Amino acid sequence: MNCLEERILKDGVVKEGNVLKVDSFLNHQMDIDLFNEMGKEWKKRFEGKTINKILTIEASGIGIACVAAQHFGVPVVFAKKSKSINIDGDMYVAEVESFTHKCKNQVIVSKKFLKEDDQVLIIDDFLANGCALQGLIQIIQSSGATVAGIGIAIEKGFQNGGRIIRNLGFQLESLAIVDSMDWKTGAITFRNM
Amino acid sequence: MNCLEERILKDGVVKEGNVLKVDSFLNHQMDIDLFNEMGKEWKKRFEGKTINKILTIEASGIGIACVAAQHFGVPVVFAKKSKSINIDGDMYVAEVESFTHKCKNQVIVSKKFLKEDDQVLIIDDFLANGCALQGLIQIIQSSGATVAGIGIAIEKGFQNGGRIIRNLGFQLESLAIVDSMDWKTGAITFRNM
Repeated sequence: MNCLEERILKDGVVKEGNVLKVDSFLNHQMDIDLFNEMGKEWKKRFEGKTINKILTIEASGIGIACVAAQHFGVPVVFAKKSKSINIDGDMYVAEVESFTHKCKNQVIVSKKFLKEDDQVLIIDDFLANGCALQGLIQIIQSSGATVAGIGIAIEKGFQNGGRIIRNLGFQLESLAIVDSMDWKTGAITFRNM
Repeated sequence: MNCLEERILKDGVVKEGNVLKVDSFLNHQMDIDLFNEMGKEWKKRFEGKTINKILTIEASGIGIACVAAQHFGVPVVFAKKSKSINIDGDMYVAEVESFTHKCKNQVIVSKKFLKEDDQVLIIDDFLANGCALQGLIQIIQSSGATVAGIGIAIEKGFQNGGRIIRNLGFQLESLAIVDSMDWKTGAITFRNM
């Protein structure tokens, strides 16, 4: 069991509707020492890959990505979320649906910050149905850059985002894969990795 | 001249309407080495202050705050922005007006993450008219916690946010105070500190 899994068992709270609250250390209050441990672990798992940029998405991916970036020595770009608006030609845009908020959003990255020769590591806090992640992949591919890998903090293994992304051939490294949760008992089962 | 001022002169772009674009290193693409230098500088300027938590606001404050937090060895909480919605009693809420987007937003922090004995350093990327910052101060004060200090990357010295905040007696440390900009020539003048 790694330090993120241990922390989820200690401080995560399971709520009805397959909701896992980790706001005391991951996505509202943020434990920077934990983020450093996560960065170290991703660095190990992506050993040997060329990575010159990290892409994440606002808001809760940003802290994790910035701290992790220190282990790779690369800059971070964060994609912005927006209600559908008119965007000028200087932006890459992907449409994504939010599982949590049940609405459609645009994910936007300035064309200045993704180039053909970029080898991009995507970092995000959660992977559930994978819509946001597919938006980020689409943006990277639109730019001609390469998805070098994907690092996720918590994957909901009982939703299909992880399977879809792995089937597409991407190296997806989730530090904790939750295979089941029970809000009545608070029990959480992780996938053995 | 410090490293942030140097970087603004090198890569910042002045646009009509007193807009300073720093999206290549501060608030879209993020230079993590620069953030570390900024964190080091704030640590020096707040030497001797007791600080046990950093508060910032999504989205562009988060990366700066998380990297800077390593120099203080404290966790980071980020306030969430939301269109005015009904919030349950577990949240501190402040109303703020956005200069850039010309709309009203709520700034929200869970009551779990601010306690009476917290000594809070506020970190954000920009200070202009100070509305967002006043919202954060209001939230900290609602919780009974103390504002130990305020660290800003770029202050627009020709707007009145900085003056208001300093007049209220807070230790406000802006790493670059822009006293004037000229979009026609691209000239930027910093306040001597």
